[in-house]
Amino acid sequence: MPSLRVALYQGPSGIPESTADSLAALAAAARRAAGSGARLLLTGELYLTGYALGEDVHRRAESASGPGAEAVARIAAETGIAIGYGYPERSGTALYNSVQLIGPAGERLANYRKTHLFGPFETACFTPGDDLVVQADLDGVRLGLLICYDVEFPEAVRAHALAGTELLLAPTALMRPYEIVPRTIIPARAWESQLYLAYANRCGAEGEFDFAGMSCLAAPDGTVRARAGAAEELILADVDTDFLKASRAENSYLADRRPRLYTSLV
Amino acid sequence: MPSLRVALYQGPSGIPESTADSLAALAAAARRAAGSGARLLLTGELYLTGYALGEDVHRRAESASGPGAEAVARIAAETGIAIGYGYPERSGTALYNSVQLIGPAGERLANYRKTHLFGPFETACFTPGDDLVVQADLDGVRLGLLICYDVEFPEAVRAHALAGTELLLAPTALMRPYEIVPRTIIPARAWESQLYLAYANRCGAEGEFDFAGMSCLAAPDGTVRARAGAAEELILADVDTDFLKASRAENSYLADRRPRLYTSLV
Repeated sequence: MPSLRVALYQGPSGIPESTADSLAALAAAARRAAGSGARLLLTGELYLTGYALGEDVHRRAESASGPGAEAVARIAAETGIAIGYGYPERSGTALYNSVQLIGPAGERLANYRKTHLFGPFETACFTPGDDLVVQADLDGVRLGLLICYDVEFPEAVRAHALAGTELLLAPTALMRPYEIVPRTIIPARAWESQLYLAYANRCGAEGEFDFAGMSCLAAPDGTVRARAGAAEELILADVDTDFLKASRAENSYLADRRPRLYTSLV
Repeated sequence: MPSLRVALYQGPSGIPESTADSLAALAAAARRAAGSGARLLLTGELYLTGYALGEDVHRRAESASGPGAEAVARIAAETGIAIGYGYPERSGTALYNSVQLIGPAGERLANYRKTHLFGPFETACFTPGDDLVVQADLDGVRLGLLICYDVEFPEAVRAHALAGTELLLAPTALMRPYEIVPRTIIPARAWESQLYLAYANRCGAEGEFDFAGMSCLAAPDGTVRARAGAAEELILADVDTDFLKASRAENSYLADRRPRLYTSLV
């Protein structure tokens, strides 16, 4: 009966002065998470650099194996927990809005490039990824990766559920007045596609953006197992694959779908 | 700027003694709805006969042009409003769980057969429909029809939005403890697919079922414009296609989809 304690780190507030500051805050959060029994720590979208970078994102981006990744790997190995973190990824001449998952021994487990870009900043600076389902295994639990706007599309979460994702990790940068997303859409996604969904948001103001906080972990029964407020916070919740299996047997959405009727969606 | 006042009739409680009783209650509700300026009245699932019929459904079913349809057409013509009502439909040797939309002159506008059947009673007694998107126009508004469990599948509502449905009508027979559906899933559907969604439930106890009421009309901004309690009730709400158009421009989910990434869904 694999189970996994997950920590969601909502913070720090505002754009960090440097990546070093982000890494110091991450190390502190990882130590607290590990001390609380968590096996996985998830940050918000573009965690390493902050979100509202404008054109500066070109200078701050790095590769999936860059110095930021190496530093996160050291934190993961030192604390013995996995870390999923958002960052702007450079690959050749392209920039991606990415999340990378580092394992508890410091190994790179998976890297996902946001497929549904949101708003003028993102569409101007980033190339959308073309691989919707990126997964990894941790402690017997199948993890999947999406980012922010991605999870607002039921198709994206459904694709993960159909591919076997049990715990979907979604760093986000969700601004006011879109509180409907963490309040209503995230629990709906977990219920309708029968999986756990961890949604780790930014908080505080960055330029024109006012991030809403409200990070949460939603369960396949539609309940919210942990919920952050508006400010910096570390929250914890447990994922239980036995509970998930029982929930999928009782709420048979995945089995009751009629794929042949959905051809207009593709 | 087409707009449409919609009435949702949640009632009467329990299995009706006869179809005549259902029709009498429907006529009274239609008069009240018309008197309040409604142009459309929607009932719950299997309204004419009640839901918990067991094997009796075979005896009670009728064709889409049967005596129940004729009686509803008379009520629609007398009150001058459209009526969407649920009923068990016989077609040849097959039974369907259907909703029929009758226009304000008593004309049959559309008939939809539930595509996603729920639970042992329905799967034992009904054949699933194979036509997911059935539409009709009323007062310049494009209407669509689904039934109960159908709308719990985001794919079904998405198919309607992509086909131009502006107001989706969903008679339902939603039991406790599934209050998450009217509370969370219905507003989520309206928001994520950017349409109005009218969800008219049954209320009271029928055999093993305890229907939850909570009928509602959800708007594309994710708000619930009208909500019934647990008992018999007629609720009213307005649909505004100008508001819908503005909401779709601001919340561009339908335009921002990436259909080529969703091939695993079909």
